Amino acid sequence: MPTWWAENAWLPSGVAHDVRITAKQGVITEVAARTRPATGDVILMGLTLPGAANAHSHAYYRALRGRTQAGNFWTWQEARQAVMRRLNPDTYLALARATFAEMALAGYTLVGEHHYIHHDPDGRPYDDPNIMGRALIQAAEDVGIRLTLLDSIYTIEGYDGSGPRPLPAAHARFSDGDPVKWFERISALKPRATTRIGAAIHSVLSVPPEWLAGIAEMTTETSVLQTHLAQHLGEAAATLSMRGRTPAQLLDDAGLLDERMLLVHAIHLDDADIALIGRSGASVCLCPTSERDLGDGIARARDLADAGASLCLGTDQHAIIDPFAELRGLEVNERLRTNERLQFSLDELVAASSAHGYTALGWAGGGRIAVGAPADLATITLESVRTMGSKPAHAPMIAMGYDVTHTVVAGRPVIVEGRHPLGRVEDLLAEAFAMLRG
Amino acid sequence: MPTWWAENAWLPSGVAHDVRITAKQGVITEVAARTRPATGDVILMGLTLPGAANAHSHAYYRALRGRTQAGNFWTWQEARQAVMRRLNPDTYLALARATFAEMALAGYTLVGEHHYIHHDPDGRPYDDPNIMGRALIQAAEDVGIRLTLLDSIYTIEGYDGSGPRPLPAAHARFSDGDPVKWFERISALKPRATTRIGAAIHSVLSVPPEWLAGIAEMTTETSVLQTHLAQHLGEAAATLSMRGRTPAQLLDDAGLLDERMLLVHAIHLDDADIALIGRSGASVCLCPTSERDLGDGIARARDLADAGASLCLGTDQHAIIDPFAELRGLEVNERLRTNERLQFSLDELVAASSAHGYTALGWAGGGRIAVGAPADLATITLESVRTMGSKPAHAPMIAMGYDVTHTVVAGRPVIVEGRHPLGRVEDLLAEAFAMLRG
Repeated sequence: MPTWWAENAWLPSGVAHDVRITAKQGVITEVAARTRPATGDVILMGLTLPGAANAHSHAYYRALRGRTQAGNFWTWQEARQAVMRRLNPDTYLALARATFAEMALAGYTLVGEHHYIHHDPDGRPYDDPNIMGRALIQAAEDVGIRLTLLDSIYTIEGYDGSGPRPLPAAHARFSDGDPVKWFERISALKPRATTRIGAAIHSVLSVPPEWLAGIAEMTTETSVLQTHLAQHLGEAAATLSMRGRTPAQLLDDAGLLDERMLLVHAIHLDDADIALIGRSGASVCLCPTSERDLGDGIARARDLADAGASLCLGTDQHAIIDPFAELRGLEVNERLRTNERLQFSLDELVAASSAHGYTALGWAGGGRIAVGAPADLATITLESVRTMGSKPAHAPMIAMGYDVTHTVVAGRPVIVEGRHPLGRVEDLLAEAFAMLRG
Repeated sequence: MPTWWAENAWLPSGVAHDVRITAKQGVITEVAARTRPATGDVILMGLTLPGAANAHSHAYYRALRGRTQAGNFWTWQEARQAVMRRLNPDTYLALARATFAEMALAGYTLVGEHHYIHHDPDGRPYDDPNIMGRALIQAAEDVGIRLTLLDSIYTIEGYDGSGPRPLPAAHARFSDGDPVKWFERISALKPRATTRIGAAIHSVLSVPPEWLAGIAEMTTETSVLQTHLAQHLGEAAATLSMRGRTPAQLLDDAGLLDERMLLVHAIHLDDADIALIGRSGASVCLCPTSERDLGDGIARARDLADAGASLCLGTDQHAIIDPFAELRGLEVNERLRTNERLQFSLDELVAASSAHGYTALGWAGGGRIAVGAPADLATITLESVRTMGSKPAHAPMIAMGYDVTHTVVAGRPVIVEGRHPLGRVEDLLAEAFAMLRG
């Protein structure tokens, strides 16, 4: 029965001091403030937060960091496709393992991996047609991070005037051909102790719209769905001209806009879309550091939250892997939109970073330091160059991933004093890149 | 004659490899690419950049990091005034020394310190009326960072309907009463090997506008001037209603808008202001991470540059001290404004981070790795968790201050392998805060 003694801990009731946390079989069984450490306690100095949920990740994009900041859109696509061509079950495993380790090091304890690189580079299924998804599960288990695998249907490349555009050859490996084959394939994937299996629709432009209702029907037992929504201005224009409906309305018409749905980006929305999403029970995942890097725009986060949407956060293409940068991004984007400080309370920001992401990824009740929640923790030092002088309760707005000293998933230590048992994360990354570029 | 051998170096002609840099009396005397390291060279692995210029700093704000992220505007003012009340020559020195050391650690080699805390907490001059400014000079010399001291005139607290509002008691220490006394005081400050003395006007609302022409006249020999401009929407409204002129026009009318002037923030400008500033020869300092934190807004950076303004960067209130965060902020803010990537070239971004700041702070020709420039360097590792996999030429967009391993100022090592000879920067900060709060 592991126990931790935290100098400061972010509890649902606020920041408490001298907090003893006990877990059994990966679940928190006791939380007591104003205690003294006892023999055998793991001491966590600084501020211990619920572990962060990275609610939207494409692990393989980590290989593009620092390689797309010059040139043009086509240089970027070439760099992406050069990486994709080298992705096979071995390289995908190595890259995901290194990327998930980078996440754990930064304080993430859960990742929602949006996965569409299913088949071999020519689009033929591997002998095990789920071998790429299983590589992601293996990577998460090797690292010790909790995973929700969001296996994504992706069969067309949007629309032009004459109808759906087929996938280019480089994207042939995304497609199972039709929803039945897709769903049959992913139904062979089974949950594990720290893995949930969800499903995803890449976006409303990635499948013919007449399939959406069928996808809704076949996934009624699937607890988590994810789709990219309104990342680009053009998406709504395309669906409006084609169907007279916004992307959010198309999802709603098909019965896909409900508590199970996690909408990613949700930037270019009108007031009616925001109201629709707010009352639907769907969650919204913003990816501030990625959206900045891509120039996607700033979501109307406060409006979405006020309409009823539960906001969570993700790193998407991993320009940065740092839950505090996302949390801060959510708040400062809103400050930039409104010219006013303090748009979200610190409790709302930590909930977006942790509890809301856990719920949206199928781990309801997680992302909190409370009895019954998964024992997933992240501790930051308050004595780094960056955090020195901060009040514990303000630290989430000024800390960074490099301030994380410990992470715990399901009661097991993952990062201890900034180190992972698999080795230096730098080395894991270097090995993965060598395999990719070798 | 110190020499460095850099694995990669950011030269005016682009990124070069295997670069040997030689300096004499603090100035670069030779730069040779495709060399082999020689006995005695200091080896700099990774990417060596010209050291960064922090073109706008108020060092004492470092004490507020992590203490203003909840509450309201008045909580924030109280926290600020609590710090200010404890500022005396000793605490100001300790706090500036720790803050400047944090800058050096992050890759800054030059700081422009905007200084207005001149007198004792009751507004009485100290026995040496420049003792607070001398504390800043001492702090910079202790750290080994280059300094331009921008001593600021600040005599009123803006305007209300009936005229100028006097400074509140808590701000009495800012004022010398009138420009003649202010300028007489600062004329006693003399430049030193790595210190320049400039002047500042806090903003056009901080002195009666009829003084501006006189200030221009008395500062004709001063090589660097700085003022906050258009940080808030209200500033232009105030000057327009009072004088029918925008803040930029008031500066221009007074003869203050020329090559010597460094305008800080420059956010809420109209097209005519941007054209005026662009053709004036003035520089513009943006502070992206601070402006995000304060909710000031996003400057029209590309428009300002296209109009002719030379852009540089500063950390202002030190929500973060990281030149790469500022450089990236300049670019991503523009991406968010336009929904397009790659708004500035990487050369433009590095120039904004280094050369333009050097010129604007009175060190023309600096901030470049070139013969004749001050030997001010900053090296980042390309093998950290953050930078692993990056192309050297893209690294400035993805690196962070924590990736800096070495900084050199005037040919002298300041940071070596992430360490400063004064001790751990965390400890310098902790000592300064203990003095302030003790």
